[in-house]
Amino acid sequence: MVSIQELATFCKKKGFIYRNAEIYGGMAGFFDLGHLGVELNNNIKQELWKRFVQAREDVVGIDGSLMSPEIVFKASGHLESFTDIMLECSKCKKKIRADEIIEEETHIDAEGKSVDDILTIIKDNKLKCPSCGGGFKEPEHFNLMFKSEVGAKEGNLAYLRPETAQSIFTNFKLVYDNARMKLPFGIAQTGKAFRNEISPRDFLFRCREFEQFEIEFFCHPDKLNDCLGYNKIKSLEFNYFDGKKQKKAKISDLKASKWHAYWLAEFYRFFLELGLSKDKLRITKHNKEKLAHYAAACFDIEYKFPFGWKEIHGNADRKQFDLTQHSKLSKNDMSIFDEETKQKIVPYVASEPSQGIGRAFLAFMFDAYDDDKKRGNIVLHLHPKLAPVKVGVFPLVNKLDKEAKAVYDMLKDEFTCIYDRSGSVGRRYARADEAGVPFCCTIDFDSQKDKSITIRDKNSTKQVRVKISEIKETVRKLLEGEKLENVGKLVK
Amino acid sequence: MVSIQELATFCKKKGFIYRNAEIYGGMAGFFDLGHLGVELNNNIKQELWKRFVQAREDVVGIDGSLMSPEIVFKASGHLESFTDIMLECSKCKKKIRADEIIEEETHIDAEGKSVDDILTIIKDNKLKCPSCGGGFKEPEHFNLMFKSEVGAKEGNLAYLRPETAQSIFTNFKLVYDNARMKLPFGIAQTGKAFRNEISPRDFLFRCREFEQFEIEFFCHPDKLNDCLGYNKIKSLEFNYFDGKKQKKAKISDLKASKWHAYWLAEFYRFFLELGLSKDKLRITKHNKEKLAHYAAACFDIEYKFPFGWKEIHGNADRKQFDLTQHSKLSKNDMSIFDEETKQKIVPYVASEPSQGIGRAFLAFMFDAYDDDKKRGNIVLHLHPKLAPVKVGVFPLVNKLDKEAKAVYDMLKDEFTCIYDRSGSVGRRYARADEAGVPFCCTIDFDSQKDKSITIRDKNSTKQVRVKISEIKETVRKLLEGEKLENVGKLVK
Repeated sequence: MVSIQELATFCKKKGFIYRNAEIYGGMAGFFDLGHLGVELNNNIKQELWKRFVQAREDVVGIDGSLMSPEIVFKASGHLESFTDIMLECSKCKKKIRADEIIEEETHIDAEGKSVDDILTIIKDNKLKCPSCGGGFKEPEHFNLMFKSEVGAKEGNLAYLRPETAQSIFTNFKLVYDNARMKLPFGIAQTGKAFRNEISPRDFLFRCREFEQFEIEFFCHPDKLNDCLGYNKIKSLEFNYFDGKKQKKAKISDLKASKWHAYWLAEFYRFFLELGLSKDKLRITKHNKEKLAHYAAACFDIEYKFPFGWKEIHGNADRKQFDLTQHSKLSKNDMSIFDEETKQKIVPYVASEPSQGIGRAFLAFMFDAYDDDKKRGNIVLHLHPKLAPVKVGVFPLVNKLDKEAKAVYDMLKDEFTCIYDRSGSVGRRYARADEAGVPFCCTIDFDSQKDKSITIRDKNSTKQVRVKISEIKETVRKLLEGEKLENVGKLVK
Repeated sequence: MVSIQELATFCKKKGFIYRNAEIYGGMAGFFDLGHLGVELNNNIKQELWKRFVQAREDVVGIDGSLMSPEIVFKASGHLESFTDIMLECSKCKKKIRADEIIEEETHIDAEGKSVDDILTIIKDNKLKCPSCGGGFKEPEHFNLMFKSEVGAKEGNLAYLRPETAQSIFTNFKLVYDNARMKLPFGIAQTGKAFRNEISPRDFLFRCREFEQFEIEFFCHPDKLNDCLGYNKIKSLEFNYFDGKKQKKAKISDLKASKWHAYWLAEFYRFFLELGLSKDKLRITKHNKEKLAHYAAACFDIEYKFPFGWKEIHGNADRKQFDLTQHSKLSKNDMSIFDEETKQKIVPYVASEPSQGIGRAFLAFMFDAYDDDKKRGNIVLHLHPKLAPVKVGVFPLVNKLDKEAKAVYDMLKDEFTCIYDRSGSVGRRYARADEAGVPFCCTIDFDSQKDKSITIRDKNSTKQVRVKISEIKETVRKLLEGEKLENVGKLVK
């Protein structure tokens, strides 16, 4: 597998990812999407939205502000609990995340451990500052939220949200009423979130500004197992890591409510169907120490990156925590009257699928990247639905520019296309391979006679001859998965 | 026309717009999009992206971080110049934007005036605090950028961007090289921006957090008039306001470079083609005092809101200002070698179309809102491309639930649908009208016999009988603008 450094270099060269403000040396944890990156990113977000919001009767979307007043995060517990324990070297003043240095030096997993536990580990292992060998000051809690002041009056504090979830909770009653929903149902949101990580790292993996797609799926607290769709996914098989070893398991083996297991399975399927390798995916369960302050249980979907198995999707049972908290602090009753049971209840979040867009992006890129020695270029095997550009259009020689442009014009309103007339056709195929373009159309000298062009499939490099008049319909079929040999005559 | 207060109430009731953190009393200038609002907003953004990025060979997109280090905004001039002049009452400490109170009390347009001019106007007109009648302290410059600190070390300042444009400039060379562009070409971006307005107002019109779609269109500085598309738009007619009176004008009447005029016309057409009333649109030119610090000239497209003619689109000639500044401060040469002229040049931004998504949203909503006394309900005449929900599916009675669900399932993967089985069909049509649903399908007792359903057109309330097997194709045609009577037999 390609290393993270090689992938980052490739992503820069091809226009997927740049460091923010790179001309000024960048700012750690902030990235910009380039001309291909923005299309891939949008495709990931749109696939999630179409599948989990628009095509479902039981989920609606919202889109909340990124900044909210302090009281929201007081209620959610983030003001008090959304912290990492930080160590500061008393000599060189370097600041480090305690669990990171502990894991690096001792291989102890210290995520979620208390300040006292951290102190003990430091003493027992005689840990020193990795930069200068100095000792550490007392460990400190460092809040990960970015703070700002709103308005001209001082002291009006607001925070950039550390997760999209909270505006789903604060708007819960409005959405429930106005979208005329009935339990169980979900509210989804795509958008940016911010975490002032002490040490951002691993490229897109741990950023300070990132995007999420989250659903809060609300149920009657007594009906966490009333899930009609469960039977369809209960036999789904996957690699399961229990904290000690990895084994095969089925969804029905998980100790989780049916709704929780259902949503976990739906996202696992999302990754599989969009092409991630099954052997590089696994499901793990959080141990109690690692659970967020609001969660009763949490599963992750992990991907095998070159830097290890890492979370690309988190899926928590958030109980009634958030709605209860917001009821208390806002003095607005967030409970609802359930028509079916005639009970007044606070809805229970049986599942919160929390999907980092950047992490999905990274997993798709690693999985797609193929340094094809035979072809002599990199081939990006992205699923056609995710491919930033769907079709390349090439005139064999510049003399055929007019004819090729006409084909480009037929396609560009429906599909994202590139038009490329520079260099040999081989060079143009290579460039398209590297951008993950699934199909390329070449207009040649025969095109005028037989009113046809050649379509080349990136994966197989096979080519087929297709009538220009049928090109739009043909591309549509190919993008939907039709086999190349079924749309025209194979070229030898 | 409906008042802004009525529209805000309607937007809340139907699930278009909520105040952020409303359960806590909200935070001025921050709004959340509800379940219909998010779809309308996404449709506006997608229409812009498809039309001005994906379907064009000469524009590519990016998507930059919302937060950038201080140096970026030092270079762009925002740190020094992106300020409003603020007045503080020496008695009650109330803070007000100077130009706002001056306009309200004296009808003098003070936007862009200097501190000295403001002082003179205050003295001449004996202006006092509108709340308590107290006098004002010395006017102060108030910077509109939200500030935050990044990382665990203190003093590492970053700002939330006040416009999307800057990451287009900082990434200019990377995009130019990696997307293999040639002058003239544009780089586009959709995303959030933030301005700490002293007094946010007029609902979505002046917010502290908002979305923009911006293009920076780069030209050779000597070729601002080499615009092939100009001939197609030069005869376009519109209402023109010259600062004193409104008259009819053509694009070719504008004193602007051809590329600048071209892009202004393209966005004017965007609004027209998506249904805004021509008589509520006009183009104005900024006078010199109102120009932003980076601009040589600027046109606005204005919409006639109930609170007056207001900018919904700004279109500036930004010269070579930003690339020159970033070259200086970053010591990275932002000039390029132009193959055609064999010259090394700093590209010139002939046009920066700057489109506020919230302002477009507001204009589309005002224009679409129709309190139809005959029907007895509000009808939202949104263009089908913008409609949050494309199709409603109703069983005439609950007994037909299974049959109706089958139709819903056929449609939901391709179109955003709602399924509604509650209340009379008339009530359901009314609800759909209010959500701007262009077409509703009703499954009735005859459906089993004739394998057909009724499609009702929101605008005309006419109905047509259509075969279930052809429903998908029919809806597709209707959404593309086909007339109702051409897709089936009109029902009397």
